[in-house]
Amino acid sequence: MDKHDSCHKKGKVFVVGIGPGGAEHMTTLAVETIRGSECIVGYRTYLEQISEYISGREVISSEMMKEVERCRQAIELAVGGRRVALVCGGDPGIYAMAGLVFELAKKHNLSVSIEVIPGVAALNACAARLGAPLMHDFAAISLSDLLTPWELIERRLRAASEADFVIVLYNPRSKRRTEQLLKARDILLEFRSASTPVGVVTGATRQNERIEVNSLENLADCAIDMQSTVIVGNSQSFVWDGFMITPRGYCNKYSL
Amino acid sequence: MDKHDSCHKKGKVFVVGIGPGGAEHMTTLAVETIRGSECIVGYRTYLEQISEYISGREVISSEMMKEVERCRQAIELAVGGRRVALVCGGDPGIYAMAGLVFELAKKHNLSVSIEVIPGVAALNACAARLGAPLMHDFAAISLSDLLTPWELIERRLRAASEADFVIVLYNPRSKRRTEQLLKARDILLEFRSASTPVGVVTGATRQNERIEVNSLENLADCAIDMQSTVIVGNSQSFVWDGFMITPRGYCNKYSL
Repeated sequence: MDKHDSCHKKGKVFVVGIGPGGAEHMTTLAVETIRGSECIVGYRTYLEQISEYISGREVISSEMMKEVERCRQAIELAVGGRRVALVCGGDPGIYAMAGLVFELAKKHNLSVSIEVIPGVAALNACAARLGAPLMHDFAAISLSDLLTPWELIERRLRAASEADFVIVLYNPRSKRRTEQLLKARDILLEFRSASTPVGVVTGATRQNERIEVNSLENLADCAIDMQSTVIVGNSQSFVWDGFMITPRGYCNKYSL
Repeated sequence: MDKHDSCHKKGKVFVVGIGPGGAEHMTTLAVETIRGSECIVGYRTYLEQISEYISGREVISSEMMKEVERCRQAIELAVGGRRVALVCGGDPGIYAMAGLVFELAKKHNLSVSIEVIPGVAALNACAARLGAPLMHDFAAISLSDLLTPWELIERRLRAASEADFVIVLYNPRSKRRTEQLLKARDILLEFRSASTPVGVVTGATRQNERIEVNSLENLADCAIDMQSTVIVGNSQSFVWDGFMITPRGYCNKYSL
């Protein structure tokens, strides 16, 4: 019996990934899950993004930085017997709210059914817009030190650089956190050439989308904000026709 | 002017991610792109997965391991003026065919318009089915040494383990490649406790889906094949109610 299907509790929290921005990047299951829920809980901006699917339902909108509150509300509604969609941008399982829902349920020992509906994450969408930068082994690192000690972030930047991973930087810069990206660049420059391709996608698949391909040494000149994801190439990555590409290795094995 | 929209060449290759298996995990854009294409090129199994969307169109099906041929055919059709959907399982940008299409176009200096349509990758889907294992920094590493020297794979396994990344292992085992997973486990055990949670998802979201949560020391006992993705937790990952969860760090900052 599948643990995901065997739960007979009435209420349920669906943690739903709505993709990077454009509604056309939502999966059918995400749309259907939201349509089939009694309550929709989420950050205001994400709810606006899916407004066509939520009319006529109970909607609980909250502001940014209220993640704990949002997850708690979703769980309480489910414990009360409701079918709840907790919406997340991108994929709920990558730097979003899936983990927090489980942590809260565990902490308070709540008997509640939880299902995560995956979505196209920022890293998937940004890579697609840049070309094909993630075609080889990669590491995703968040530069936000609000919940993680900066020393650990630095250790991971060094390890990923040294072992020639392509590196995806989440939360590269905000209004308050401006130094972390410069420190990260300096660490990467210890291990990679100054000309290493760097791609920056801001507001991927949204109306304000900006795409920039530059080099590691010029990273500080790129326009980077809270909506940006940065991808730093490995030693083999190259730029062609405006696209950023990391080879998978076919060229070494086959004559293309 | 956006380079992705400004191309007036008639033919075009869309490299389309159809998600992990279940048709409900395709995005609207992937479905529309396939429906709007004149030719559909892909590996037989993937074409069966999307059979409802491709009837009445020219379909070029190929066997496994024919990636170079498949990409070349798609490009040639586009150079000839056709709108072509080259379908990939998961996300075309993660260990799939997006990079190869660009590499071939570059190599042969072909003037062809290319667009990547992202999808839910194996790592997104497997994480969702396991709970929330990717909530903190993670590294994706393919254990296939067909295109990558094993020494480089080992170096990346060591670096990712040492810096406490959650680790996603792609291509963990095939009929021919059985030793790599055991070697990887031994490297990980140098840095992580034997009880580190490990999640294995095989055939994610397909009818034959199998989900197993076990520990690093028992990794060799798990049923793992070509359709499996393995996620190894970091030092903070835990198992609760059958789910595998990596905390994001809210517990340290807030009272949940």
